[in-house]
Amino acid sequence: MSPRVDPVDHPPTKPVDDKDITRRVALGGLAGTVGAVFAANIPVTPPAPAASPPQAPAPSVAPGRLLGAPTSAVGTRSPFAPPTGRTPIGATVGSSLTPLQSLSGTITPSDLHFERHHAGVPTIDPATHRLVIHGLVDRPLSLSVDDIRRFPQVTRVHFVECSGNGRAAWVSPAPDMTPQRTDGLTSNSEWTGVPVMALFREAGVQRSASWFLAEGADACLLTRSIPIEKALDDALVVWAQNGEPLRPEQGFPLRLLLPGWEGNANVKWLRRLELGTQPWMTRWETSKYTDPLKDGTARIFSFVMDAKSIITSPSVPSRLTGHGWRVVSGVAWSGRGRITRVEVSADNGATWHDAELQGATLPKAHTRFSMMWNWDGGSAVLLSRATDETGYVQPTRKVLLDARGSGTDYHNNAIRGWRIAPDGGVYFHWDT
Amino acid sequence: MSPRVDPVDHPPTKPVDDKDITRRVALGGLAGTVGAVFAANIPVTPPAPAASPPQAPAPSVAPGRLLGAPTSAVGTRSPFAPPTGRTPIGATVGSSLTPLQSLSGTITPSDLHFERHHAGVPTIDPATHRLVIHGLVDRPLSLSVDDIRRFPQVTRVHFVECSGNGRAAWVSPAPDMTPQRTDGLTSNSEWTGVPVMALFREAGVQRSASWFLAEGADACLLTRSIPIEKALDDALVVWAQNGEPLRPEQGFPLRLLLPGWEGNANVKWLRRLELGTQPWMTRWETSKYTDPLKDGTARIFSFVMDAKSIITSPSVPSRLTGHGWRVVSGVAWSGRGRITRVEVSADNGATWHDAELQGATLPKAHTRFSMMWNWDGGSAVLLSRATDETGYVQPTRKVLLDARGSGTDYHNNAIRGWRIAPDGGVYFHWDT
Repeated sequence: MSPRVDPVDHPPTKPVDDKDITRRVALGGLAGTVGAVFAANIPVTPPAPAASPPQAPAPSVAPGRLLGAPTSAVGTRSPFAPPTGRTPIGATVGSSLTPLQSLSGTITPSDLHFERHHAGVPTIDPATHRLVIHGLVDRPLSLSVDDIRRFPQVTRVHFVECSGNGRAAWVSPAPDMTPQRTDGLTSNSEWTGVPVMALFREAGVQRSASWFLAEGADACLLTRSIPIEKALDDALVVWAQNGEPLRPEQGFPLRLLLPGWEGNANVKWLRRLELGTQPWMTRWETSKYTDPLKDGTARIFSFVMDAKSIITSPSVPSRLTGHGWRVVSGVAWSGRGRITRVEVSADNGATWHDAELQGATLPKAHTRFSMMWNWDGGSAVLLSRATDETGYVQPTRKVLLDARGSGTDYHNNAIRGWRIAPDGGVYFHWDT
Repeated sequence: MSPRVDPVDHPPTKPVDDKDITRRVALGGLAGTVGAVFAANIPVTPPAPAASPPQAPAPSVAPGRLLGAPTSAVGTRSPFAPPTGRTPIGATVGSSLTPLQSLSGTITPSDLHFERHHAGVPTIDPATHRLVIHGLVDRPLSLSVDDIRRFPQVTRVHFVECSGNGRAAWVSPAPDMTPQRTDGLTSNSEWTGVPVMALFREAGVQRSASWFLAEGADACLLTRSIPIEKALDDALVVWAQNGEPLRPEQGFPLRLLLPGWEGNANVKWLRRLELGTQPWMTRWETSKYTDPLKDGTARIFSFVMDAKSIITSPSVPSRLTGHGWRVVSGVAWSGRGRITRVEVSADNGATWHDAELQGATLPKAHTRFSMMWNWDGGSAVLLSRATDETGYVQPTRKVLLDARGSGTDYHNNAIRGWRIAPDGGVYFHWDT
C-alpha cells in the first residue's frame, strides 16, 4: 500500500501576508486589556445547571506579565491542589486507602494506589530478584526480570480490590465515612506484563497440574493457591503500572495479576510459582480470606470480586451548596467482566435511573458513571447499583445478609450511598 | 430485576478442619527453605525467546525476615527505579520531553507528561480563576472551576502532541538520539472535563459563529483560533488528568483539549473563549505554527496530527545482549481516530510484518504495539509504520519531503527507527 500524505488539509492553503501580521498585532494589544473590558461591560450569568445559582463570580482579570516557572525533569502537583493522601491503617502490617472522593475518571495515580501488606513493603533489587517456576513442570526455571521482559507482553487496564474492602463500613458504619474510608481498598491501573501461561509453557507445565502456588518475597512469604484455569484465562506477571515500573507497595519488581480476583491473591514481590494438583491450604486461605457462612461451613477460594459501585460525588466530606442540577458521579467494577449498566436512585431505592457510562467500559476495570441530578433542596438518599455483562446485579444489604449471614464481612458489595440533608450535609448510608 | 447473589462460587464450599491447618503449618515450614533447596537441586534453563540465552541466573534466595517499610500517605518510586526525567530544553520559554524509551503501556505518568510553554508555568489559584465565554453568544458567561464541574462531564484517553515533535531529529539527526529526544513531545493521559459545546450552548452561541478564540492565562496570553466544528465534534474543557487535577504544566486549573489536534491549540490555563466568524490570525498562527510549502504558500491551521509510530524498545540507549527472540515494542497514534494497524520491518523497509496492538485501541490515543523478533546477530534496521482507521498510512521521509518540501519541519511523522549493529549497538535511523 502506498503511503498517502496530505500536505494541505484543513482549511485551504493561505499565503501569509502583511495584513495578517498587522491584524495580529492589533488583536494582541486588545487581548492585554480584555480583563478590564470584561470587568466593566459584560453581563455575567451563572451556569445553567444551577436552578439556585451560585453567586455570580467576579469576571476574569488578566494575570501579571511575570514569567512562570521553568521546565522541570519531574513535575509536581499544584500547590493549590495537594493530593488527598492515602489513609494509613496500621504500619508494617497495614493498609492505606485510595482517596476515591478526590479522583476523577478511572486511573488511580500510582502513588495513591491502595496498599495492603502483612510484613511491610520490602526493598528489592531487581538485578538480583528471580522468579522460580517449579513443581509439575518439565523444565524448572529461574528467571530474572530482564528474562521475563523478553517474553511476549500485554498491556491491560484492571482494578485490584482487597476482599476486605467495605468491611469497616459493614461492621462499624458511621455517617462521616468518606468513600476512601468505606471503599478505598480498590484502585485501577494500566498494567504491563507477560501472560502466566507463556511462562508455564516455557517451563513445560505437565498435564496433571491443576493448581499453582504463588509466593511473595516479603518477610511473611505470603502464599496463595490459584486454579490453573486462571492462568489459561488471563493471569499475568506484571512489571509495569501506569507506564512505569511497579511501585514498591504494588510489588516491585514483579507481581502476579489475577484480573478481577481478590487483591491478596495478586501476590506481590512475586518470587515463586509452583505447579501442583491441589490447593496448598496455606494460612492465607484457611485462617484468612475464608468466609464463614450461616450453616457453619465456610466459603473458601472466594476469588472473584463481585460487581460493585460507589458514588464518589457528591459524598463525604463535600457539602451541597445551591439547589438545582449537578453531576452525580462514581465508579463501578466487576471481577466477572464489563460493567453494562449502573443505575442511580435519589430516593433510597424507590426509583432507579440509568447513569451514563464514560469512555471505554473495559472488562474487570473501574468504569466511571455519571448522571445529572436536580436537587430540590429536600432530603434525599443517593444510591448506585451496578450490573455486569454476566447479568449479575449488585445486591442489597438484606439480600447479602440473607445469603451469607453476618459472619461474612469480606466480599461486601452491597448497595451503599449517601443521605443528603436539607442543609446540604452529606452522610454515609447503607441501603435498607 | 431482582439482584442475584452467589454465596458460593469457585470451588464448592469446604469446611475448614484441623487437617488443613496442620498441613498449612508443614508447608509453611518448607517455604522458608525453598531458596536453599533450589540452589542445590533444580536445573535452571533460560527463557525460550533467547536463541542465544543469557547466562543462567543464580536461583532465588529467600530474603531476610525483616519487616519492610510501613504504609505511607503518598507513595514513592523504588530507589532501584528512579524515573528517567523529562529532558528540559529551555526554561521559562521551553519544553521538556517525555522519556518514551523508559515507559511501558500507554499512560504517561502525569509528572513525566511533556511540557511546552512560551512564558513559563503560571501558578493559578483555582478559587479565583474564571473562564469567560463571550463574542457571538446571547449570554456571556464568567464561570468558576466549580461552576464548570456542575456541567455533564466525560472521561476519555487522548494523546497530546506538539506539532514540533520530531523536528530536532528531522533537522539535525544524530545516531545517539533516544525516543525521548526524537519524539518526546507526545504524551497520553486520561482526561476528565466538559464538552465545549455544553458551555457554548449554555452561553447561547449564535448561528453565525464559525470560529472561536481560546486564550490562556499565562504571561504571553497564548491564543489560537479554532473552527467551531471541533466543538461540535469532541473538544473539551478539562480539569483532570489521570484521575487528579491537571498538573500545572498541563494547564491547571483548566485547559482546552482538542483530541488529535496539535498541542499548542490545546490552550492551557484557559481563561477566555470568544465566538466569532473568522480566525483571529494571532501571532501563534502566523509567525508560528504555520508550515511553509514548496510553492511559496504556507499550510495554515494544520491542526490534525497525522498517524505516527515509534519503536521504544529496543532503542537508544539500550544495547542488545544475546541473539534470539525478543519483543519489539512501541507506540502509535493518530489525530484522525483509531490506529488499525502497525507494521514492523527489520530490514529497513524491504519487508513488513503486522505487529500486535495491545489492549483497547482508543481513538486519538497512544496505542501500544509489540512483535516478537528473532535477532540473528547481524546488522538490522527496525522501522515501524502506522495506519489509522481513515486508511492514512505513515509516510516515508521521501514522500513527506516531496509533498511539502524541506521548509516544513513541523508535523513530521515520517517513518523512523533504529539501526542495530552486530555488536548490539542501537542507533537512531531515518527511513531512506
